[in-house]
Amino acid sequence: VVTAGFREIGGEGIEREERLAAIAQRFGMRVIGPNCMGIVNTDAGVCLNASFAGTRPQAGTVAMVSQSGALGEAILADASAAGLGVSMFASVGNRVDVTAADLIEYWEEDPQVKVILLYLESFGDPSHFVQVARRVSRSKPIIAVKSGRSAAGAAAVGSHTGSIAGADLAAESLLAQCGVLRVTSFREMFSLATALLHQPLPRGERIAVVTNAGGPGILATDALVGCGLQMAQLSKSNQAALRRSIPAEASTANPVDLLASADAKRFRTALRVVLRDPGVDALLILFVSPVMIDAEEVAEAIVGQTVAGTRPVLACVMGRQGGQEALALLARNGIPVFRYPEDAARTLLGMVKRKRMLSRRPGKLPAFPASRAPARKVLEGGAQGDGWLSAAEAEAVLRAYGLPFAESRRVETPGEAVTAAHDLGFPVVVKAEARGLLHKSEHRAVSIDLDDGDEVFEAAADLTNRLGRQFAGLTLQVQKQAPGRLEVLLGMTRDARYGPLFVLGMGGIEVEVLRDVALRVGPIDDRDPGEMIASLRGAQLFAAFRGEPAVHRKAVAEAMLRLQQLVWDFDEIEEVEINPFMLGSRRVASLAVDARLRVKV
Amino acid sequence: VVTAGFREIGGEGIEREERLAAIAQRFGMRVIGPNCMGIVNTDAGVCLNASFAGTRPQAGTVAMVSQSGALGEAILADASAAGLGVSMFASVGNRVDVTAADLIEYWEEDPQVKVILLYLESFGDPSHFVQVARRVSRSKPIIAVKSGRSAAGAAAVGSHTGSIAGADLAAESLLAQCGVLRVTSFREMFSLATALLHQPLPRGERIAVVTNAGGPGILATDALVGCGLQMAQLSKSNQAALRRSIPAEASTANPVDLLASADAKRFRTALRVVLRDPGVDALLILFVSPVMIDAEEVAEAIVGQTVAGTRPVLACVMGRQGGQEALALLARNGIPVFRYPEDAARTLLGMVKRKRMLSRRPGKLPAFPASRAPARKVLEGGAQGDGWLSAAEAEAVLRAYGLPFAESRRVETPGEAVTAAHDLGFPVVVKAEARGLLHKSEHRAVSIDLDDGDEVFEAAADLTNRLGRQFAGLTLQVQKQAPGRLEVLLGMTRDARYGPLFVLGMGGIEVEVLRDVALRVGPIDDRDPGEMIASLRGAQLFAAFRGEPAVHRKAVAEAMLRLQQLVWDFDEIEEVEINPFMLGSRRVASLAVDARLRVKV
Repeated sequence: VVTAGFREIGGEGIEREERLAAIAQRFGMRVIGPNCMGIVNTDAGVCLNASFAGTRPQAGTVAMVSQSGALGEAILADASAAGLGVSMFASVGNRVDVTAADLIEYWEEDPQVKVILLYLESFGDPSHFVQVARRVSRSKPIIAVKSGRSAAGAAAVGSHTGSIAGADLAAESLLAQCGVLRVTSFREMFSLATALLHQPLPRGERIAVVTNAGGPGILATDALVGCGLQMAQLSKSNQAALRRSIPAEASTANPVDLLASADAKRFRTALRVVLRDPGVDALLILFVSPVMIDAEEVAEAIVGQTVAGTRPVLACVMGRQGGQEALALLARNGIPVFRYPEDAARTLLGMVKRKRMLSRRPGKLPAFPASRAPARKVLEGGAQGDGWLSAAEAEAVLRAYGLPFAESRRVETPGEAVTAAHDLGFPVVVKAEARGLLHKSEHRAVSIDLDDGDEVFEAAADLTNRLGRQFAGLTLQVQKQAPGRLEVLLGMTRDARYGPLFVLGMGGIEVEVLRDVALRVGPIDDRDPGEMIASLRGAQLFAAFRGEPAVHRKAVAEAMLRLQQLVWDFDEIEEVEINPFMLGSRRVASLAVDARLRVKV
Repeated sequence: VVTAGFREIGGEGIEREERLAAIAQRFGMRVIGPNCMGIVNTDAGVCLNASFAGTRPQAGTVAMVSQSGALGEAILADASAAGLGVSMFASVGNRVDVTAADLIEYWEEDPQVKVILLYLESFGDPSHFVQVARRVSRSKPIIAVKSGRSAAGAAAVGSHTGSIAGADLAAESLLAQCGVLRVTSFREMFSLATALLHQPLPRGERIAVVTNAGGPGILATDALVGCGLQMAQLSKSNQAALRRSIPAEASTANPVDLLASADAKRFRTALRVVLRDPGVDALLILFVSPVMIDAEEVAEAIVGQTVAGTRPVLACVMGRQGGQEALALLARNGIPVFRYPEDAARTLLGMVKRKRMLSRRPGKLPAFPASRAPARKVLEGGAQGDGWLSAAEAEAVLRAYGLPFAESRRVETPGEAVTAAHDLGFPVVVKAEARGLLHKSEHRAVSIDLDDGDEVFEAAADLTNRLGRQFAGLTLQVQKQAPGRLEVLLGMTRDARYGPLFVLGMGGIEVEVLRDVALRVGPIDDRDPGEMIASLRGAQLFAAFRGEPAVHRKAVAEAMLRLQQLVWDFDEIEEVEINPFMLGSRRVASLAVDARLRVKV
């Protein structure tokens, strides 16, 4: 149904769309649209173009779905210009019935479809999408442009986790978790599709560059390293072999620079040597067509040396527009040809990402013993006006699921605080607690490093005097000071569309400023927390650092999985933030210090 | 001299190059090359092509210099494909005489040259380049691709500043400081050159988007916001005016979505309204050619509404390849046309950067009173084997130039430490100092928050016992604890090519991990420190934050300028690092706590 005038115009359009859905359902019909650009199927036995696209795509092995009709038109036109053949195309419009996920599932079974391209603006039903995409992406690459990056995160007031868990970060995480390769432009989408269709995946991320000019070699190195890829290191013996067959001024290190005088013979020799090197996972060939060299002969040499190989080969041809035959020869033999090294590097990165995704062993989802009943009791009793539990209640719920907290006492007066401190052992921390006192550091409601009774009394008296009037029902928490050296933040926000979003980040008051956090859409498994830590800018702080031993990563990983178990058991929990969780070098020294928890009201 | 076989082959080639230089100098000749691709001058009265470029560029107003012959060829070919006319082209090869800076200076005087494009691999003489480029870039845009990003930073062992001040960061800073627009690809270079040639500069960074399809509007918004640009906010009255002239389903917010049915008339009306809005600094028009709309008429409407305007207008045309005449019409009227919104956004960013550069008032370079003689005495006496001064000496030199330090005493025994602490007033910090003890936190050589004599004694005794055997000549520093709340790092590394590089970053032991630093090539003026702070990820921590008042930015800015004065007066100073400099809300509470200084040996 390409016709417009349905849900998108509101009012009677919505009714009209509901009638359409009902009719279709009654008669067991599937509907694509309404308000879409239509569908195309190039199969010789079908040959259907039920769209108003101006471009007639050539037949091929790429299937595409677009959530935007207008961009569908652009995608078809650009795919055609990029030489990509299309098997099927659909624009899904208002998605009264068939969604992108349905089409992915449909294409899973179609042997004609080798690569699936998506333009998405939103996920109809994220959990259905995840389920389908996670499965299909293991057998067929799915490449997506997902727009709406900048619409990110209407901040959930009152919680760090909320403000960090931006909507686009969630989409990014969701796509990565189900193996979809997200790219930022259609240019990248088509290049990557071409490369995945015609080239093998690299085993690793060590890239060799063979060039006939120094400048492009430097640009390519910049681009590759800038993408996080590695420059391959050629073995000594292969460098020596190169040295014997190329001029003395040529470079045998990577990038291998064969000089402008390099003819087909020199390319042939060099490619043979580079492609037998075990340290090379992929090859990028740069060619600036010099006046005196026959570009077509060089292209033949490149094809001859690489066509039957097990490693991906990409080419970047710069300069003179002359060598059209050479370009065509490379393209005909499945070698993706680029104009700029940056584009080739991005494509190689996409291929490496796909390889990594396919190599990742799925994690496990351990179940922990938990005291469900006490947690339920607190949750049922605790919900107040705004849904926030008191600090003591939040701690009780999390403790019931085995999250370790620094030992503490809750008291009313400075005198009781001193008694509690002696009871716990020094040093201690004294904190003020009250409804509405959400950001403790802002109100200087935490006093740390208290080493004796006098200091505790003084700190407790100060908190009581200073904050007692401002916050009704102020109480004091005396807590044994956690010995860990690294503050991290753990959190969960339940998103209306995506479900539980889990956050792990660097903690402390700087967290909101530096925003060094990783996010995952649930469910997470036991490999996720480690990968989240590795993705932080501050990852190195978890390792042994400046004389301090490494912190106990497993403690935070386990805390994260226990937190997940809790929020699965109780879907009334909307938001949890444990900040800070202090990590020490041993498990017993790794403890939550403060936590907040909000339930649905 | 296009001939090769000079310096690049070493040995006799070097001699040959020296002979060439001598001959040229004797007869007052200028030399471009050797080992280059030659020069091109398209002026009708000259019409010189002394190059072996395969592309014959069309005449125009762009001048180009390339440090790579091969890329010179590519640049000429691509400029031609992008419709850019070339006035002059030179590839500088081995630069025995004429450098890129010389050519920039030459083109400054040439009324035919409107935009200068550079491909650079290195700066021959950075200070000459800076001098010339800083002047010329104010009258003619200079756009550069500078390669060698990834060759960054051979870490200067033993200092944070050294490892941070990577070579590419220096090049990036140098280019920005002299007003050169650095881009990462030739594609971007040509787009930006086209836009700067034909469009006025935006007054600000508020971009309006007018589109005939929703999807591209979202993509453009993502790209613009991703570049750090702002989406313009149309006034209420202009939104109302739009509402009256476009269909009800169309969007009058930015992006203004005129729908696929938008014809020339609707475009004309919408553009008139948007371009009179005072909140719009630049306009990006998106057009996906629908089947039923005459693209050429729309193009005519666009040209008619925008051609005499004072605000830049860029267009992005997606989809059907049909509207070639429409595209040609836009291009002929100086409207840069893009295929993808991301490319248009990058170009707008370049234009905004140029506007910012031209608007920046030059700063002042205040001179501070300084005690030069005492500083000299310490520097002359202090240089030891490795060039590092002792902590006491470093502090003395910096104090002589007015850098404020937390008050301290240097003592030998725990008993003396207690006396010193009482003398200074509590709380104090006790630190161990010795040759070779460079990273104090790694050796746990700092004990903070000491509140009475007993704590001082205990800490001092521990340091002496623990580190005394490991480090010969260990002494103790007792320092009044600095009251500031924010740790920053100030530093200088003298680079062999670039001269003094100044660093300002977030301090503390995390500095090396998070690398939140800003770098400037000297000389810096009194506006630079503030701009450096603003560029940090942690910039917000300098403002009032979570109940803490803002820190005293001027204190750190002045410290930076005093440091510069010191390293100018003494060019034997190779490296200085003040880490941490504790910033408080008042000047007196903003003090250096620790510093290291190395001189040439």
